Amino acid sequence: MRLVLDAMGGDHAPHEIVAGAVQYARQSGHTIVLVGQEQVVRAELAKHDAKGLDLPIVNASESIQMDEKPAMAARRKKDNSMAVGMRLVKDGQGDGFCTMGHTGGALTAGHMVFRRIPGVHRAVLATPFPNAKGFHMLGDIGANPECRPEWLAQWGQMLGIYAQARLGVTKPRVALLSNGEEEGKGTELTRAAEPLLRELLGDAYVGVVEPKEMMAGAADAVVTDGFTGNVTIKLGEALATYIFSVIREEIMVRPMAKVGTPLVKPALRAAASRLDDREYGAALLLGLNGLVTVGHGRSKADRVIASLRSTAKLVEANVLERIRAEVKATVGPASSGGGDNDHND
Amino acid sequence: MRLVLDAMGGDHAPHEIVAGAVQYARQSGHTIVLVGQEQVVRAELAKHDAKGLDLPIVNASESIQMDEKPAMAARRKKDNSMAVGMRLVKDGQGDGFCTMGHTGGALTAGHMVFRRIPGVHRAVLATPFPNAKGFHMLGDIGANPECRPEWLAQWGQMLGIYAQARLGVTKPRVALLSNGEEEGKGTELTRAAEPLLRELLGDAYVGVVEPKEMMAGAADAVVTDGFTGNVTIKLGEALATYIFSVIREEIMVRPMAKVGTPLVKPALRAAASRLDDREYGAALLLGLNGLVTVGHGRSKADRVIASLRSTAKLVEANVLERIRAEVKATVGPASSGGGDNDHND
Repeated sequence: MRLVLDAMGGDHAPHEIVAGAVQYARQSGHTIVLVGQEQVVRAELAKHDAKGLDLPIVNASESIQMDEKPAMAARRKKDNSMAVGMRLVKDGQGDGFCTMGHTGGALTAGHMVFRRIPGVHRAVLATPFPNAKGFHMLGDIGANPECRPEWLAQWGQMLGIYAQARLGVTKPRVALLSNGEEEGKGTELTRAAEPLLRELLGDAYVGVVEPKEMMAGAADAVVTDGFTGNVTIKLGEALATYIFSVIREEIMVRPMAKVGTPLVKPALRAAASRLDDREYGAALLLGLNGLVTVGHGRSKADRVIASLRSTAKLVEANVLERIRAEVKATVGPASSGGGDNDHND
Repeated sequence: MRLVLDAMGGDHAPHEIVAGAVQYARQSGHTIVLVGQEQVVRAELAKHDAKGLDLPIVNASESIQMDEKPAMAARRKKDNSMAVGMRLVKDGQGDGFCTMGHTGGALTAGHMVFRRIPGVHRAVLATPFPNAKGFHMLGDIGANPECRPEWLAQWGQMLGIYAQARLGVTKPRVALLSNGEEEGKGTELTRAAEPLLRELLGDAYVGVVEPKEMMAGAADAVVTDGFTGNVTIKLGEALATYIFSVIREEIMVRPMAKVGTPLVKPALRAAASRLDDREYGAALLLGLNGLVTVGHGRSKADRVIASLRSTAKLVEANVLERIRAEVKATVGPASSGGGDNDHND
């Protein structure tokens, strides 16, 4: 397998990105193509023992900085590391592209290089999200803050395939996030999406879930608009941080608890790490005509490894081909995707 | 002070409601008017030692059940305990009304009995929400799943007053919940609300907050639409439950951690209770021409007490008069509230 990695993306690029690539190449035996400013990446690579590993470097003269307006930067800098990396995949020189860089940049570059799969309304960003039974796929988590009912339905279809590939479930249960199922609950958007999801997914659509059911693991894939989804993942992160800091505070004011803490600490650490996205890898941009995964901007080497591992899993599961086939089967080969193929950013 | 309490509202009514009322009456010395089916409430009250306490009973022949469509039930059952209790407050026989019953029922009955304060676009349900520095007020948490920019701005104004009353801050910082402040973030709604909030609140509006800043305590009042707000409080509850269950699981698989647990348990318990709404009382319906608070449907006596205590605090702080004055000062006395006075349910 050949994975293409954006060596310039993320807060800790290129140092931690290259470090993660070296370690993952050793673990997996895969080829990891490093895309970025050649001299810089080569100097970084020289710090590691990469003997026997296949880590080719492909030059990209520009990169999208974390503080730039990503969509504009992706358009202006034609030779940015994301676009160069994606073109390698498009030309068959890689099986999938992975970046720790800006989601907005990946979204714009992804649309420019790959375009959408014919029949896909809008690309959707989805990520595994932890629940009481393991994980479910959650999307959109930020690509489309505003969306239409038919997009939600199609995202349900694509997220189901994503759940199959990542969770190994044969019949994924797909749900719609809402604030309740009673009459008068939800929004115009969720109420209009419900019948479309039922029509498109049949039994695979298990209905509306509230956060409580979602966290209990009632579905393998949960669809929502990109505003709610983005607030959800950010709130999840912020609440976990808050709760562990409250636990720490309450321990510190109790001398007996401080005595017991060394014994309990490994369990608290393990609990915190189960909520941490380094356990479950990168988010996936679904609906593009190429495989693009986006890891956390703050990724250090361990998260880069997790991101590459989850990307490899999607390549192995042939997710892209399965989405193409399923979209084609439902919208028909003649459809051009419900209108233009422009990304609305 | 005379508080009017819905003795029939909530999952544990009337038993726990009456128990909470008796205890709070003793703690506070206030009069608690119990509204409900007279015989039933009297029988419940007879189980307690209420000597020297002022706990009058007012009969209401009907009540809104938790499994009814609340808005419809509130309209059909004219003599339901919520409407009867609110009419007492309207007639000057009580300073505020408190229920553990259905939010939708309280909303409908509140609009029918009190109507909105002239100049108020829509009533908003707001609750204290925990953060790293204590609490902030969060609303709308469910009264208006869909809303307009000018409603958000006015809710910011009312939530600021609520924060003053509940948190004792003199200059409340009001923020708008969003998924980021960069260009292209947010929705049409949040982008349109931003300038209106700035115009109406001036320096008191501190801008957009992401969940991370909200949980860090960057604002005293956070406004959002009723869909996002409802998902936020439900996700907060579900995530806390999830995180503590993960901690329990990780402790159970580690013999050493099990040994240390009795020492740490009081700290974990204290942390869990800080996240629990019994610590911070009932939610407030802002914008109605009468004081209405709504406690958790699952409330037992301790939460009923917290709800009554928070209601008393709002009466003491004269919240209603302050909202009336501030709305009047900004929209002018002639305004009728931006259109009709119907509640949209």
